[in-house]
Amino acid sequence: MMKKSIFFVLVFITLTISGQELQNFRPTQLVSPEIQDGRVTFRILAPNAGMVVLYGSWMPANTSREALTKDENGVWSITINLPDPELYTYNFVVDGITKNDDANIFVQRDGRRLLSILLVDGPNTANYREANKHGNLNQVWYDSPTIGTTRRMFVYTPYGYNTSNTKYPVLYLLHGGGGDEDAWSNMGRACQILDNLIEQGKAKPMIVVMPNGNPGQQAAQTLSLPEKTFDRNDPSFTNLYINSLVKDIVPYIETNYRAIAEPDSRAISGLSMGAGHTMAATNAYPGFFSYILPLSNGIQADESMDEAFQAIKKAGYKLYWVACGTDDFLWERAQNLDATLTRNGLEHTFRVTSGGHTWANWRIYLNEFATLLFK
Amino acid sequence: MMKKSIFFVLVFITLTISGQELQNFRPTQLVSPEIQDGRVTFRILAPNAGMVVLYGSWMPANTSREALTKDENGVWSITINLPDPELYTYNFVVDGITKNDDANIFVQRDGRRLLSILLVDGPNTANYREANKHGNLNQVWYDSPTIGTTRRMFVYTPYGYNTSNTKYPVLYLLHGGGGDEDAWSNMGRACQILDNLIEQGKAKPMIVVMPNGNPGQQAAQTLSLPEKTFDRNDPSFTNLYINSLVKDIVPYIETNYRAIAEPDSRAISGLSMGAGHTMAATNAYPGFFSYILPLSNGIQADESMDEAFQAIKKAGYKLYWVACGTDDFLWERAQNLDATLTRNGLEHTFRVTSGGHTWANWRIYLNEFATLLFK
Repeated sequence: MMKKSIFFVLVFITLTISGQELQNFRPTQLVSPEIQDGRVTFRILAPNAGMVVLYGSWMPANTSREALTKDENGVWSITINLPDPELYTYNFVVDGITKNDDANIFVQRDGRRLLSILLVDGPNTANYREANKHGNLNQVWYDSPTIGTTRRMFVYTPYGYNTSNTKYPVLYLLHGGGGDEDAWSNMGRACQILDNLIEQGKAKPMIVVMPNGNPGQQAAQTLSLPEKTFDRNDPSFTNLYINSLVKDIVPYIETNYRAIAEPDSRAISGLSMGAGHTMAATNAYPGFFSYILPLSNGIQADESMDEAFQAIKKAGYKLYWVACGTDDFLWERAQNLDATLTRNGLEHTFRVTSGGHTWANWRIYLNEFATLLFK
Repeated sequence: MMKKSIFFVLVFITLTISGQELQNFRPTQLVSPEIQDGRVTFRILAPNAGMVVLYGSWMPANTSREALTKDENGVWSITINLPDPELYTYNFVVDGITKNDDANIFVQRDGRRLLSILLVDGPNTANYREANKHGNLNQVWYDSPTIGTTRRMFVYTPYGYNTSNTKYPVLYLLHGGGGDEDAWSNMGRACQILDNLIEQGKAKPMIVVMPNGNPGQQAAQTLSLPEKTFDRNDPSFTNLYINSLVKDIVPYIETNYRAIAEPDSRAISGLSMGAGHTMAATNAYPGFFSYILPLSNGIQADESMDEAFQAIKKAGYKLYWVACGTDDFLWERAQNLDATLTRNGLEHTFRVTSGGHTWANWRIYLNEFATLLFK
């Protein structure tokens, strides 16, 4: 019944109508980044610019940058040796103006910023690419009576969840300062890492819950839901987020998903501020989470925590896994935590890596510790 | 058990550690856009720039732009009268380099581009803001035997879906050329529009399915899932996507969601290329979708479609709703469709608006036609 002519029109429309709002844009013909023979070239068209530099997350120091050179067509470029396999972010600075790579459609949102991505393939980054079998990522709104607003979290359900009847364990995975509920799925490649590890049989199929750890925010990047403000000196503020986690989020998940509602099927991990939330939650609710994994923690673990750690020991747990890089500016805090856990007689793993306070490390940690959970 | 001191540290960390990858970034102190007294000011820091201009989707012609002026601190700004209430996108061009507004965290992805957003409030844009009660948005992977890959779609479930036992009707909502599965939820504000209309009692609670209409793509913005290429001259290519919609996507939704599996509970709409897909699907599968809503269609509706339209008439349908703006470069095609439907004796609505081939119009159409469905 369908006439072929219709489809030629369809194809024509596909190719010629963009439906794009701003017509001043012409897709760049540049290829950037271009990886070839162990080297990578970055390019940007900026005929009027006086100076273009490149900042990359692989560069050693905060102030490192590479200067690009201009050709006769106004295209600035630089070719450098490929950094070690890792998932990096970068941007250009054109005469002092930061700028994404327009030729690169892969961007990540890092707080308020959008950054271009460079993925250098290697055995350690294979799990950051897409697996064959994908879990689903759900943007879920829930009521938080504790905080007094409706809030959004991201919930990953593993491949096969929809067609199985089994119940799953749950990892609560918390972001750091400046982040929000999309940080782990975006910067952290959490879905790809879990998809791959589950496909490889290395991790148990699990639900992963990624809430928003900023109590004043209902959700990230919505068009102006009002931010709720709190009196941070009010004693009730201190427990607000972790109480909402235990009293609002966990019950929501265990009611609305096929989640196993017992401590041995609950893991909690987080980076930086999220490591603080992890420790605060497990200190305040000993025995509730059997897997406890603070990453790059910034909390000072001293005698004031002894009582809490003794309560955790008494309540029982499966794994206490502390990770930090030796270049992390919080490295000393991680060492303190290790020592305090030891002094309190809590069996634990202290996973020490190179590197600093970076998503590169937090992805590595997730890729490792996800294989240890619920076994 | 928790010591207050821990939380002071937590708060301190929240405020001081960003965990951001590239340290060359300092959050701007600028406010932009700033709406005040019926005017809006845009600002960008660019001390070294020679010329900064602003492109906005409210500007009348493709070449329209506004020049900014520089103050003594290197901040370029411009204040203009607020355009009529609508959701707009804009960008700066700094010495020929396109640039988002770094002070504005609200961006939309338009194909390969990221654009800053300006929302001008008014009765017609109220539904683009967040409702009180939110449905969930799910990124769902499904097998497409028709296309031969695993693919991703976005599925909106209305507020209350998780806790109800009822079944819901389904709107299949298709994007245009250059778009993908996130176009309607992102540029189209589909979740906010549905949330608001449902909350106001104007639209029936429904599931909304937003697939990816580019058969070669498994999903948008993934880190390099290979694109599948097709021989577009192969006769089987022409029906590929609409067959996958009817044979893969609809059964997936009606198996995995509480969807009412009958024609009167299936609506299909799309813009531009998606209007072509809408018409192709309903022409090829008469009686399958009872609500048919092509927006800004580009297909030539002539005698070659008479047979298909007669089959639709015979099979029966609830609503055939054609919409287009009189400034749309496809306006003549919409008029042809209207005339062809009339000539074939198909009762239908021809919704004529001002405006062109724009998301502003497509949002207006969704906001209108969602109230007509499944009643």
